[in-house]
Amino acid sequence: MKKIINSSVDFVDEMLDGLCSAHPEYYAQPERRVLVRSVPARDGKVGIVTGGGSGHLPIFAGYVGPGLLDGAAIGDVFASPSSDQIRKAIKHAERGAGVLCLYGNYGGDVMNFDMACEMLELEGLRTETVLVADDVASAPLAEAAKRRGVAGMVYAFKIAGAAADAGGDLTAVTAAARKAAESCRSIGVALSPCIVPQAGKPSFTLGEDEIEMGMGIHGERGIWRNRLRSADEIVDEMVARLREDMPLASGQRVSVLVNSLGATPPEELYVAFRRVRQILEADGIRIVMPLVGRYATSMEMAGMSLTVMALDDELEAWLKAPAACAFWQVAGDRA
Amino acid sequence: MKKIINSSVDFVDEMLDGLCSAHPEYYAQPERRVLVRSVPARDGKVGIVTGGGSGHLPIFAGYVGPGLLDGAAIGDVFASPSSDQIRKAIKHAERGAGVLCLYGNYGGDVMNFDMACEMLELEGLRTETVLVADDVASAPLAEAAKRRGVAGMVYAFKIAGAAADAGGDLTAVTAAARKAAESCRSIGVALSPCIVPQAGKPSFTLGEDEIEMGMGIHGERGIWRNRLRSADEIVDEMVARLREDMPLASGQRVSVLVNSLGATPPEELYVAFRRVRQILEADGIRIVMPLVGRYATSMEMAGMSLTVMALDDELEAWLKAPAACAFWQVAGDRA
Repeated sequence: MKKIINSSVDFVDEMLDGLCSAHPEYYAQPERRVLVRSVPARDGKVGIVTGGGSGHLPIFAGYVGPGLLDGAAIGDVFASPSSDQIRKAIKHAERGAGVLCLYGNYGGDVMNFDMACEMLELEGLRTETVLVADDVASAPLAEAAKRRGVAGMVYAFKIAGAAADAGGDLTAVTAAARKAAESCRSIGVALSPCIVPQAGKPSFTLGEDEIEMGMGIHGERGIWRNRLRSADEIVDEMVARLREDMPLASGQRVSVLVNSLGATPPEELYVAFRRVRQILEADGIRIVMPLVGRYATSMEMAGMSLTVMALDDELEAWLKAPAACAFWQVAGDRA
Repeated sequence: MKKIINSSVDFVDEMLDGLCSAHPEYYAQPERRVLVRSVPARDGKVGIVTGGGSGHLPIFAGYVGPGLLDGAAIGDVFASPSSDQIRKAIKHAERGAGVLCLYGNYGGDVMNFDMACEMLELEGLRTETVLVADDVASAPLAEAAKRRGVAGMVYAFKIAGAAADAGGDLTAVTAAARKAAESCRSIGVALSPCIVPQAGKPSFTLGEDEIEMGMGIHGERGIWRNRLRSADEIVDEMVARLREDMPLASGQRVSVLVNSLGATPPEELYVAFRRVRQILEADGIRIVMPLVGRYATSMEMAGMSLTVMALDDELEAWLKAPAACAFWQVAGDRA
């Protein structure tokens, strides 16, 4: 295992120490592994809290910031945070208007968030929950509730953050987040694995010339494993699978996120984006504010994911609203 | 070679096609492999042009944008652009006040830039050149002019861009760029190689448990090769080598860039930044606007580089001035 770390035990805490001290204008860590905005939101704004395992930067902690999230509870690498951490994150995010819990659909996270919310409800704090479950490869459409959450979370964070900034109440912000989550579909392709520091060995193996279509961000089994294909063949299949799940009519406006799972460099993402644009534009689908880069990763895993979010006027306005964190800035004046 | 590409021959052009179509608000490609700002700078602003091989995004083309560069000539992966491309990039960047050529100290680039500038001088276009040569591992201090340019280019682009935006003439912008270049020192450490598409195999090999201190961004030989050490041991040596080359007194303000060479994830960079801060702050050196992320890469190479720029009031103001490109935004209101 070749990593620039001191010990697998201290990895997460040293990482969060570095994150907060590099970007004190965005992040503070009032309690261990509970990240919040260093400049809290105004009173009366609905709080938005996420949480999940480490190793996915900018997800989860990275998206804490104005126009995005108010707090995040951070677990070990690829492991859920505790209900206690989640409870603390929610309490820090509460500014008198309730808190939306917005996170990916994974068993451990759901259990611990539910437990935290139940306890807080007893204290009179109002919470709502929206699960992001955008990975079409993780379960068929008929069982969409079983799907895992992947890079679609980025869009859900952005939309919910904008709706909260716009003054929406807890019901409205929850509805916005749900609409965003339901408008996203994602699929990933893995080229090579990452190594969880505490495990010390790759979470899966792939042959020298093999890729796996539909693999999850923790190495969950995908749709097929086969020889490497060209970028265009890979993208064609990914786009087809997303559109099969969520048909897009000519004239539809979408945002697309071409996301590196970690090691895959931006050069390859731009080759892929080029093809996505060719396919969609040929069918009269208009791409708005595309995102190309590392938005939801699995440390040094090689591969990429493709997310499509179908837009209406409301989602598009929220997508373009100002937001800022150490990993992503939206100026708010983009055409 | 496992990459998301179509062919090694089309790789660079397809990448640039994707880059420009994903971010039309920043980039345009008026001629093949010549990137310029899609919204040209105002008349009378000094133009700033860079150039170099592909495979280093955001370097080189990525830094074209307001407050940064006006144009970039882009070569094949790890290969110099031609003097013809460079000449075209300079002509596009010319707005009546001359053009600064600002790039890394590599033989092929120097030769082709010099040739382009000579031809343009005959046409009456004024150019100046500043080479960035910040890699302390590439030659001893006594032969500093032989050093290669690495991530210090990012600071040089930022400072020169701000000086040009502030209305400086060609002499002033050149002086600003030179001051930035002379105030930067960098060193890298490599953990694993990348594969140049047209070569199809790794540019170097490292043992399962080996790292190389001081390796260049194209795999140029470093200072030592040995077993992996802890993050803190690696950072301690890197900081010591930079400070040996450029002593920093207590009270000195610096910016530091902890840069991934590609595959190394942000989590590891933040562990490293944490240590950089500990060391410098213990000696009374104040870190201003640290940068942590992927600013100058070698595709999927694993490893990191550390750059320190010593600041005075002028450099600090230019560093914090507004700038924007698809890979980096500086809002201009940062403390």
